[in-house]
Amino acid sequence: MHHENDAAGEADANPHNLLPTNRIEALCDGVFAIIMTLLVFDIRLPDSPPDQLAITLRSVWTSFLGYVVSFLLLSIYWMGHRSQYQLIRFADHNLHWLNLLFFALAGMIPFSTGLLAHYNDQWLAVVVYGLNLILIGVALYFHWRYAVGHPELTDGPLPPEVVRFGTIRCLLAPVCYVVAIGVGILDPRISLFAFALVPFLYIIPPLQRMWLHLARL
Amino acid sequence: MHHENDAAGEADANPHNLLPTNRIEALCDGVFAIIMTLLVFDIRLPDSPPDQLAITLRSVWTSFLGYVVSFLLLSIYWMGHRSQYQLIRFADHNLHWLNLLFFALAGMIPFSTGLLAHYNDQWLAVVVYGLNLILIGVALYFHWRYAVGHPELTDGPLPPEVVRFGTIRCLLAPVCYVVAIGVGILDPRISLFAFALVPFLYIIPPLQRMWLHLARL
Amino acid sequence: MHHENDAAGEADANPHNLLPTNRIEALCDGVFAIIMTLLVFDIRLPDSPPDQLAITLRSVWTSFLGYVVSFLLLSIYWMGHRSQYQLIRFADHNLHWLNLLFFALAGMIPFSTGLLAHYNDQWLAVVVYGLNLILIGVALYFHWRYAVGHPELTDGPLPPEVVRFGTIRCLLAPVCYVVAIGVGILDPRISLFAFALVPFLYIIPPLQRMWLHLARL
Amino acid sequence: MHHENDAAGEADANPHNLLPTNRIEALCDGVFAIIMTLLVFDIRLPDSPPDQLAITLRSVWTSFLGYVVSFLLLSIYWMGHRSQYQLIRFADHNLHWLNLLFFALAGMIPFSTGLLAHYNDQWLAVVVYGLNLILIGVALYFHWRYAVGHPELTDGPLPPEVVRFGTIRCLLAPVCYVVAIGVGILDPRISLFAFALVPFLYIIPPLQRMWLHLARL
Repeated sequence: MHHENDAAGEADANPHNLLPTNRIEALCDGVFAIIMTLLVFDIRLPDSPPDQLAITLRSVWTSFLGYVVSFLLLSIYWMGHRSQYQLIRFADHNLHWLNLLFFALAGMIPFSTGLLAHYNDQWLAVVVYGLNLILIGVALYFHWRYAVGHPELTDGPLPPEVVRFGTIRCLLAPVCYVVAIGVGILDPRISLFAFALVPFLYIIPPLQRMWLHLARL
Repeated sequence: MHHENDAAGEADANPHNLLPTNRIEALCDGVFAIIMTLLVFDIRLPDSPPDQLAITLRSVWTSFLGYVVSFLLLSIYWMGHRSQYQLIRFADHNLHWLNLLFFALAGMIPFSTGLLAHYNDQWLAVVVYGLNLILIGVALYFHWRYAVGHPELTDGPLPPEVVRFGTIRCLLAPVCYVVAIGVGILDPRISLFAFALVPFLYIIPPLQRMWLHLARL
Repeated sequence: MHHENDAAGEADANPHNLLPTNRIEALCDGVFAIIMTLLVFDIRLPDSPPDQLAITLRSVWTSFLGYVVSFLLLSIYWMGHRSQYQLIRFADHNLHWLNLLFFALAGMIPFSTGLLAHYNDQWLAVVVYGLNLILIGVALYFHWRYAVGHPELTDGPLPPEVVRFGTIRCLLAPVCYVVAIGVGILDPRISLFAFALVPFLYIIPPLQRMWLHLARL
Repeated sequence: MHHENDAAGEADANPHNLLPTNRIEALCDGVFAIIMTLLVFDIRLPDSPPDQLAITLRSVWTSFLGYVVSFLLLSIYWMGHRSQYQLIRFADHNLHWLNLLFFALAGMIPFSTGLLAHYNDQWLAVVVYGLNLILIGVALYFHWRYAVGHPELTDGPLPPEVVRFGTIRCLLAPVCYVVAIGVGILDPRISLFAFALVPFLYIIPPLQRMWLHLARL
């Protein structure tokens, strides 16, 4: 009976069957390396006379900005996943599938970035892009809730303030993206700049301390 | 003589020469990360006037559904491979080549997904897509049979119920795909939905317990 | 002085500075996962009426065969690299660069495969493809000679028969490719089949024992 | 309080929270494997009559050279990153983001290589390509300065000569690229050759010893 618990056969049937997380982390790094790198392939130079290269480069400015912003927003999610797996020691059937949901949603970012870069004056493109980002964040949130709700995955229960910080962190970005979508519906052309502000909340330590402090109120 | 057994030179000549599985697992994660991510590149927006973005997005609906379904079906195979390597500790010459066969067949999924998305009213596209999926499953099945038939690869023989579960698991999806191909020949347009039902047999624990129970009869 | 030997600063200046091989192996798996997977992207379906899908599929037959053959030939080189690193424990400055040369040449295979598939009746395409394959093998050969010539990389000298087997293994494929190029110059259309025969010398154990035996004469 | 320090929640808020570097190294290897491999996809054969393959191949000569040069220049940066992580044992919040900056800049190389290959007679293309390379080197320099300035990341302070070597190594390439840009503005067509000379300063041990010696003066 104990032998069966260890077995691959039962790995999916029994949600309490615990596997090491190394393969999930490897797949995550692979998926994010590809998505982040392929973003830049959306930047296509239009055919133009060689002596008008400066004008041509200016015309891909929106695509370029889209690359930078999407790279940063994906970085935040990669960092979030990476931080969670600093605490998660084992993965069960459900956590594997929550990861795959997270990867699938992240994998759509090159598409929705291309959409936003190409139709940068259309509110619908802003909504699709923002919705994609929100869904990634929500998937990471459920991933976190599931992991902290199953102490066998984290080698014992985590301190409440750690759980709370992880939760706020997962939800802060999606909340900001809702605001950015709102801005984008009013004026699609400035929406990318609204999205571009979000990473700084995570990258700049004082800003991070600020929202951490606000969340404690 | 013992030294020679350890040697790279003999690694392929002698099927009993055992290598660690870490490189196979790394190649697997890399291949699946790329395939899953590149699927979304099949979703190409047709050029259209900016004010018809909603209509344009609707026109890529089939491609989008194809991405989601193929991602899920590949996830099942990645999970299957991952679960097998929870039990497989060493790989010999033949197991390496069975893996490479498995990767080669999985690598064709972006092509056959694109075919199905583009020719979604043609039964031939359904057959190619379904056949590709079946062949991946069959390769994984032979991989499993080979591994469980060589106890030196799994650190001793596995319990019969584990072997049996792994076998059923490998064959369940291909059997479903045969049915989905049949549906697809009758009506190609609903075939993708037939394929889309398969993942739930693996993802939803009660459904998984159901077919596990049926197989025990 | 001893401290300096350990340092990153000296890692390249001092060819005797030894680094673990895990990063090289990870880069290798990443590069081969991508090359192998991207090969299939060379298979492009021409635009054609939906009711002529069968004819369209037949027209990509050469591309498809090119994918299968190149996948197999790359697999041999991946297996060769993987086997060598079963014995190589450390890498110095020169071995890193020999690896990067090996990866750069392997990275050209999608290009030369596409060339051969597209211009399958041109002897020049056969020569480019074959030459690319030969150069990969030659790089792997120099990699092997360098590693076995520096016992500090392999934790002491390897038995002569292991060194000899590894050498034969590296050179067998390039020699076959020279023959395949010769066939291809006489009749380019059958060259791909000539290349396709090579993997079997590595995959089928009795064939492998045969050339191993012949080399011992 | 001590528990909180260990937590993922605090991983970003507290710059002194140390994480292992394995995930950064995996992401680095993934990103570089993809960039290096995708470079070759910039080599596009123009449609031409089959009997003019030789002429067609000559026309992609610049793209081909661009692939080789960019592969080599990226190799230098990969080697630089790899060498630094031989000494860096832990990564904090800031080091993660410095890495992501380094990856984002490296990810633009396929774009700027394509630009240079396509507009090889335009000084603006040379400037964009050179600037991209310089920025990668500067990011790696700041990465190095940050790491050596925080002894907790390197398990104690590094010997001054190691720090100095790492610094010179990071800055040598960017300085050369400034010169290459200057050459490129005078004559864009020979700029790629100017860039192509840089790798030899790193690959050939005597040349490396030379600039190491010059830097000691």
